[in-house]
Amino acid sequence: MLSRPRARKRGPGLVALRGRPGEADPRPPTAGKVWLVGAGPGDPELLTLKAHRVLQSAEVLVYDRLISPAILDLAPTAARRLYVGKRKSNHSVPQADLNDLLAALAGEGLNVVRLKGGDPFMFGRGGEEMLACRAAGVACEVVPGISAALAASASAGAPLTHRGLAQAVTFVTGHAAPDREGRGFGEPDLDWPSLARANHTVVVYMGLSTAEVIAARLIAAGRAAATPVLVVENASQPMERRVLTTLSNLAQAAKAFDAPSILIIGETAALADLVGLAATSPRAAEVPAPSVLEKPA
Amino acid sequence: MLSRPRARKRGPGLVALRGRPGEADPRPPTAGKVWLVGAGPGDPELLTLKAHRVLQSAEVLVYDRLISPAILDLAPTAARRLYVGKRKSNHSVPQADLNDLLAALAGEGLNVVRLKGGDPFMFGRGGEEMLACRAAGVACEVVPGISAALAASASAGAPLTHRGLAQAVTFVTGHAAPDREGRGFGEPDLDWPSLARANHTVVVYMGLSTAEVIAARLIAAGRAAATPVLVVENASQPMERRVLTTLSNLAQAAKAFDAPSILIIGETAALADLVGLAATSPRAAEVPAPSVLEKPA
Repeated sequence: MLSRPRARKRGPGLVALRGRPGEADPRPPTAGKVWLVGAGPGDPELLTLKAHRVLQSAEVLVYDRLISPAILDLAPTAARRLYVGKRKSNHSVPQADLNDLLAALAGEGLNVVRLKGGDPFMFGRGGEEMLACRAAGVACEVVPGISAALAASASAGAPLTHRGLAQAVTFVTGHAAPDREGRGFGEPDLDWPSLARANHTVVVYMGLSTAEVIAARLIAAGRAAATPVLVVENASQPMERRVLTTLSNLAQAAKAFDAPSILIIGETAALADLVGLAATSPRAAEVPAPSVLEKPA
Repeated sequence: MLSRPRARKRGPGLVALRGRPGEADPRPPTAGKVWLVGAGPGDPELLTLKAHRVLQSAEVLVYDRLISPAILDLAPTAARRLYVGKRKSNHSVPQADLNDLLAALAGEGLNVVRLKGGDPFMFGRGGEEMLACRAAGVACEVVPGISAALAASASAGAPLTHRGLAQAVTFVTGHAAPDREGRGFGEPDLDWPSLARANHTVVVYMGLSTAEVIAARLIAAGRAAATPVLVVENASQPMERRVLTTLSNLAQAAKAFDAPSILIIGETAALADLVGLAATSPRAAEVPAPSVLEKPA
């Protein structure tokens, strides 16, 4: 293993950053700390070894509804468990209060593990919690996690990038912005022409309730109506379900789901394994064209 | 735990997929299998628990140069180890031969673990290996991994998305396409206008050697020259180094690095923790403007 050549080949005038968090921490050993831990997509086996270790050292667990009981059970029985879950229109703990809570708990000298579904820094609002810790002078370390889309892609056998099909992947949220009056919801504020270009996978988190407008806007911006879309609900969990459809049929297909789901939009979605097993021949050619949906009665 | 409601709320005409890979596999128990395992960014602690378990069951390990020895050491001593590493202009095993190799080893009834840096389905060419297994009738399961950018983002404290700064993130490769004559390398074939829009993080893998043209094209397409860029080399590893710079200074800054690096381009990069520790005040306001670089002598 090399020693740490922090200054190696450093150009003049560059702002060089320290190697790794936690080194030579000047705080007293009794100081508390906040760990922002990516809990992954739900399957406890998709926690990282580091997340598992940190979880086992927790004195306080702060978690929301996307964290499965099997993951919470990995923490010491004695650890205090604080549920701060929220639903779309029912914020049980406002983000600002949550930020304050984390800093206050660490300020009491506790080892605080804030579990966040997926990865803390991809649509997890982990940045806000990190900044609150910094503002309060509280140590904060981030442990990355398997984002739900990567788990969905892996279990379905639908790569996010693939030679000749997708050379880039964009992650967005389908969560709608408030309308002009600040009441209710409008539609996702996304750059449709960029997302509509071919040879590019678009992953939408929380896109179920806005699936219809997402499909319509992408088609209007030029993405082919026949573009495959894989909908994955509860990725990595025993109750995982997947459907392969197309942009033009997405609105209808989305009605079959209600739990947290990922949309994988793009040509690679058609590589998804229809039977959930390793297939005996290349699947891309075998994937039936998604049926045209009947209107429900 | 719920039972598996595969058909719950399934719409008419939808192509429903099976729940999870590996269920009710009709192959005999002696059949081999290929596991495409995301080995994460380098730190063995950033393996998932599942990757760790699968690694411990390996009869053959197939790996390339991005896999650290500490990770290889987690497999049984008796497991056969096959190095198939390649460098940018020096493919030691062509991808087609590698695909055949994986299928052939599993065809011998072996439990084959193909370790891939980061995640197999984000720039890992895992899709090609999966399709080769399907074509050969070999079972193949994908274990997602922590992609290097997520590790870089976590350790630097620079979120990939953040309210008001980045509502989307795009992952691309800076690897240059062959030129028209198929000789040498041209420049990355990317959609510069899309990548240049503000309020959007762009993550570039393998972008070190093309950093100059990437910066120039983004600026020409309208992205501000002062846009912060975080360069992270060897993310998550003891020799990790980071530099915060700007698009206009990126070409110069990139010269300070030579190992595999990630570029995080966008306003959130400025949130990076300059001292590598939890700071005592909000860092965004404190991050000094990156210095204008002198030309090296």
